[in-house]
Amino acid sequence: MSARILIIGAGRSSAALINYTLSKSEELGWTVTVADSDPNAAALKVGDHPRGQGVWLDVTKTNDRRELIGRADIVVSLLPAHLHIEVAHDCIRLKKHLVTASYVSQELYRLGDEARNRELIFMGEMGLDPGIDHMTAMQRLNVIREKEGKITAFRSFTGGLVAQESNNNPWGYKFTWNPRNVVLAGQGTAQYLQDGKLKFLPYQRLFRTLWEVNIPGQGRFEAYANRDSLLYREQYGLENIPTILRGTLRYPGYAEAWAALVKIGLTNADFPILDSAKITYHELMEALAPSGPGSVKDRVAGMLRIDPQGEVMKRLIWLGLFRKKRIKLRDATPALILEKLLLDKWKLGPDDKDLIVMQHQIDYELDGKTFRDVSNLTMKGKDAQDTAMSRLVGLPMGIFVRLISQELIKATGVHIPTMKEVYEPVLEEMKDFGMELLHTTEEL
Amino acid sequence: MSARILIIGAGRSSAALINYTLSKSEELGWTVTVADSDPNAAALKVGDHPRGQGVWLDVTKTNDRRELIGRADIVVSLLPAHLHIEVAHDCIRLKKHLVTASYVSQELYRLGDEARNRELIFMGEMGLDPGIDHMTAMQRLNVIREKEGKITAFRSFTGGLVAQESNNNPWGYKFTWNPRNVVLAGQGTAQYLQDGKLKFLPYQRLFRTLWEVNIPGQGRFEAYANRDSLLYREQYGLENIPTILRGTLRYPGYAEAWAALVKIGLTNADFPILDSAKITYHELMEALAPSGPGSVKDRVAGMLRIDPQGEVMKRLIWLGLFRKKRIKLRDATPALILEKLLLDKWKLGPDDKDLIVMQHQIDYELDGKTFRDVSNLTMKGKDAQDTAMSRLVGLPMGIFVRLISQELIKATGVHIPTMKEVYEPVLEEMKDFGMELLHTTEEL
Repeated sequence: MSARILIIGAGRSSAALINYTLSKSEELGWTVTVADSDPNAAALKVGDHPRGQGVWLDVTKTNDRRELIGRADIVVSLLPAHLHIEVAHDCIRLKKHLVTASYVSQELYRLGDEARNRELIFMGEMGLDPGIDHMTAMQRLNVIREKEGKITAFRSFTGGLVAQESNNNPWGYKFTWNPRNVVLAGQGTAQYLQDGKLKFLPYQRLFRTLWEVNIPGQGRFEAYANRDSLLYREQYGLENIPTILRGTLRYPGYAEAWAALVKIGLTNADFPILDSAKITYHELMEALAPSGPGSVKDRVAGMLRIDPQGEVMKRLIWLGLFRKKRIKLRDATPALILEKLLLDKWKLGPDDKDLIVMQHQIDYELDGKTFRDVSNLTMKGKDAQDTAMSRLVGLPMGIFVRLISQELIKATGVHIPTMKEVYEPVLEEMKDFGMELLHTTEEL
Repeated sequence: MSARILIIGAGRSSAALINYTLSKSEELGWTVTVADSDPNAAALKVGDHPRGQGVWLDVTKTNDRRELIGRADIVVSLLPAHLHIEVAHDCIRLKKHLVTASYVSQELYRLGDEARNRELIFMGEMGLDPGIDHMTAMQRLNVIREKEGKITAFRSFTGGLVAQESNNNPWGYKFTWNPRNVVLAGQGTAQYLQDGKLKFLPYQRLFRTLWEVNIPGQGRFEAYANRDSLLYREQYGLENIPTILRGTLRYPGYAEAWAALVKIGLTNADFPILDSAKITYHELMEALAPSGPGSVKDRVAGMLRIDPQGEVMKRLIWLGLFRKKRIKLRDATPALILEKLLLDKWKLGPDDKDLIVMQHQIDYELDGKTFRDVSNLTMKGKDAQDTAMSRLVGLPMGIFVRLISQELIKATGVHIPTMKEVYEPVLEEMKDFGMELLHTTEEL
């Protein structure tokens, strides 16, 4: 039952996972090795724990990586998503279990047979979103299925936000996750199903098509559609469902203001601005504004057909987009310039508390009646170090490592956490960390 | 002085070029070989001309290609743009001159020194746009420079359209050029200079920012900005000019209706529609329309904020976008579906005459006054075979081949036709084919 745990990556989201594994190490006979390209980061997170050690690793060095993986029983990869596949190949070769919080790529799915033949479990999407969203949704869906409800609609919304008491900027948003993904969110065309009809939303309309979501104790949010709501239709067993939608939650007003940034052209990542090292934000806005009389602000407001004194304009002004301050980025795209600006304006303060909100709405028919099962999850962080985001991404992986080491997982192959043997114990233990899915049912 | 001319490619735009070279062959002692992957196409275009022959060539077969090029003195490549580079390498190796109508790639420019060392001329952008636009613009710019006018603005507009008498559809447009390029036109961000300020236009606003252009004898047109108006700033000698704009001409109303297609999401080329083989155009529009009560048409009009009975809607309906007719394209993107629809609706009828319109507006200061030099060019085709487009793309290449064979070109290396020794004789001979640049000057 004793196990050697290897965690590769000691970056932003690793703290809760490392703390969890170290806290369980005595009881479960674990040793915990944390490997990072920054040896200090690894050592700092492990501290002087007798069962932990931090080591240096350049993951691109195949021999070093295999050496470390060879000495482990269970590997958790917190590497950037595109690097998992190398680690996965090593785990096949060296017969090790693998856990990640990233989306499972087609390439990784193709290792399923090899993992199964070696009686290994490769668990991906074992974080928050993807991760807890799968587990909580499957729990509610299966409860309804067990009482023979016929599911007719599934809507699922998640947001990584900032708590009300730390919400002191007009956008109601600060970064607790990859800023680049926030800036580029939604580019392309989103798809979902509504009343049996496939619906497409191109990027230029994405942030103008919103759903209202009320989370008890937290109030009203708005949601915009994720890129592909149909992605998990089969894995959730919802092949023939008429309505399926996955969305991202924001405080009200965010999407309208973001739609303005899109229309101005500030999320465009495909061309570098000439002279971006020399010009000011004001000059950039002048370049993007229509020509004509009046101030740049007035012309931008006119182009957006918004009130120059209104809420959207206040948000744009607050970002500093009209300031005569140098951008100082060479050959940058508008998206990169915006990202740099937001990194500064949307930085989580040291005492800021983040907030995770999630809601699933499941409509079903039973005994001739129609019901809506609404389940909610909220978690608030402590400060900029101990974030709800870090806990909800890291703890499920830690708990799943425990389940493997205690031989409580029968499944083998490549998976996402949709199986009862995974989600029930994980969600149960998450209650100890203050995360609970609360549900209500109403007749429609 | 006798020369062996090789024309690679006997497709859509080759007729005028082949006819020109054959018609000059006796006088200039040329032989003309036309090579194509379709041997019939080549033979058909050459006919039974004693100095011409059509041959079969698969350009990807290096040996066959070199064999043919080795037996020529001057090579004209009408291949798709990405294939020119292989031909260019052969021309370097075998010491042959090269002429194309395509944009000169960075890769091709890098062969400049090698071409110069071998005393070869590689002339690119020797068609209409690019081509005649360069030559006519340089002619007017240099006339103004010679009288010491200080140039303060350069605007250049070109359109490949359909003549008024053949203009019988509500869009005022039929295809005389690559349909895919028309559907994807402007994706990204356009840039131009206005009054000393760099201006950017992201795609979602491109077709809503228009310039009005009057062409004597043809009436009023609208223009939208090309992707990069600054591209030829240095080559035209306009490094410090405050205003530079290049645009595409359309009949009035086209751009507003095209902007509607953009907003609906129909020009999106980044995701294939699920079930595109099975659904109808009406179902596609339903998928792209907002949900709610009312017909799909009404909901689309509402989303576009346009009159459901208005001109834009008439154009959309005329395309057949709301018809319950199967799309029958597997895994097609919206852009591909639109392209297929337009190919049918915008097809040039056998007796349709196409129309090329071009206007340069050059503002300059002279003796304390400001003038505008406006030069116009129009050409109408005869029918769907003998188009103005084909003539204006093909004839400049033919005339340039004559200039090379008569040793009238001193330049060597890789070029576009901005030099007087090129544009003066080419534009002079184009008059014989009915193309003349007419200019007027007014004081501003």
